[in-house]
Amino acid sequence: MILINGVAEDRINISDRGLQYGDGLFETIAYRNDVVEFLEPHLNRLVSGCDRLNIPFQQLEQLRSELKTVCQSLNDDAVIKIIITRGSGGRGYFADKDSVATRIISTHPYPNYPDSSKKGISIRFCQHKLSENTVLAGIKHLNRLDQVLARNEWDDSDILEGLMFDQDNNVVEGTMSNVFIVKSNQIITPSLTKSGVAGVMRAQIIQLATENKLSVQEAVVTQNDVITADEIFICNSVIGIWPITHIVDSNTNYPVGAITQQLQQSLQQLKK
Amino acid sequence: MILINGVAEDRINISDRGLQYGDGLFETIAYRNDVVEFLEPHLNRLVSGCDRLNIPFQQLEQLRSELKTVCQSLNDDAVIKIIITRGSGGRGYFADKDSVATRIISTHPYPNYPDSSKKGISIRFCQHKLSENTVLAGIKHLNRLDQVLARNEWDDSDILEGLMFDQDNNVVEGTMSNVFIVKSNQIITPSLTKSGVAGVMRAQIIQLATENKLSVQEAVVTQNDVITADEIFICNSVIGIWPITHIVDSNTNYPVGAITQQLQQSLQQLKK
Repeated sequence: MILINGVAEDRINISDRGLQYGDGLFETIAYRNDVVEFLEPHLNRLVSGCDRLNIPFQQLEQLRSELKTVCQSLNDDAVIKIIITRGSGGRGYFADKDSVATRIISTHPYPNYPDSSKKGISIRFCQHKLSENTVLAGIKHLNRLDQVLARNEWDDSDILEGLMFDQDNNVVEGTMSNVFIVKSNQIITPSLTKSGVAGVMRAQIIQLATENKLSVQEAVVTQNDVITADEIFICNSVIGIWPITHIVDSNTNYPVGAITQQLQQSLQQLKK
Repeated sequence: MILINGVAEDRINISDRGLQYGDGLFETIAYRNDVVEFLEPHLNRLVSGCDRLNIPFQQLEQLRSELKTVCQSLNDDAVIKIIITRGSGGRGYFADKDSVATRIISTHPYPNYPDSSKKGISIRFCQHKLSENTVLAGIKHLNRLDQVLARNEWDDSDILEGLMFDQDNNVVEGTMSNVFIVKSNQIITPSLTKSGVAGVMRAQIIQLATENKLSVQEAVVTQNDVITADEIFICNSVIGIWPITHIVDSNTNYPVGAITQQLQQSLQQLKK
């Protein structure tokens, strides 16, 4: 099902600034066992992102209502994607002050990879680097050419994710996920001050780790930090936590470690 | 008139990667006196941009034919905008190898500002800085949040452009234009190695300056270089060359200088 501003249709006017300039944001949300997982954190991030980009999104209650309509149409687990754009109008980059944000909700089949959660996955390092801009860092905006270019570097279905570097060659995130490493029982995830998406699942995991009395910090993470880690995992709202068991480029292997498993179990509990 | 893949319609499926990820490019072209100005340089840049982004655009002849159809519908000067996206499809950022690029051609009223060309304009400096990425630098892609944020910093219709800085605080371009300064008869335009759009008009002006035996170079340009310049002008394919006569932030004034006028005249000659 697709709803555009509450109407069931699948096409949008080309004047929409989402198409013209990537002038908008999105959320990708898991719908499992009849529950929209982490709905409030997703909506909070959406509103916060609109604030940071000065997108006049004032239809949160309408969006909630439309999400309910969409969920009623679902018979199975699904991925729900919400796109909010600055709407249509304006002369070039300049936006009409009275423009109304566009709301797009679409549903997609839930990609179930149970083995990945248990057995772990292989990843690679991407050549394409993330653009840097402190003002845009953290926001899940529609300017995603970096991720597109990085994700299309490989076509091997055995490699499920690629880690991306910033302009200083530090590791920031995966193309569709955030990354955590564990070293001497210390959990570290890259800080996202210059690039990267501040994932809802990333925030949940930081909170879970803290509640579990595990040491967790955001820091600069080098390629060598990743390669020499004791445990590595990636996360996003759809996949949850996937352990990394192999990095192709360095030909290094990792266990599905104790801390990764502990966080997976805590995440499962949280969802119940 | 709007043509999407040759069909007269104004709406596009939301699955198009142009909307989903800003995964595409565009050209903005002047149509004046029944001529599509600098058509070949525009199409060359479009094809080159597609190559750089690995967008499988193989419909150049169809696009030419569609441009003719669009021009036949025009009774007056106009702006023609072409958008090429990677098309629909693919799992997330990964693109189907057999996806077909989307072609969108739209026409817009020609914004005529004759006074700006003769008398010059006021500009400002933007706070929002350009994202940096050598791989994307120069390409007129659809990831334009930087320009949107910069252009919406001001709402004073007397200020017609804002200059943007890179992360190192060097001047790169205007929100919708390239910039040139003249200092001791030396013409300088910012090099675009880390950010910025390599404008078709910018390339024409560099060529015109060379043909006019004027000294022109691409270099790092600081804010102070701009403020202390003898002449400043901006350019794009729609406006041609606009002299800058005032910078608001530094409260400095500039003449419509001899070299700027010479290049304006050469550009007029070139169009005849």
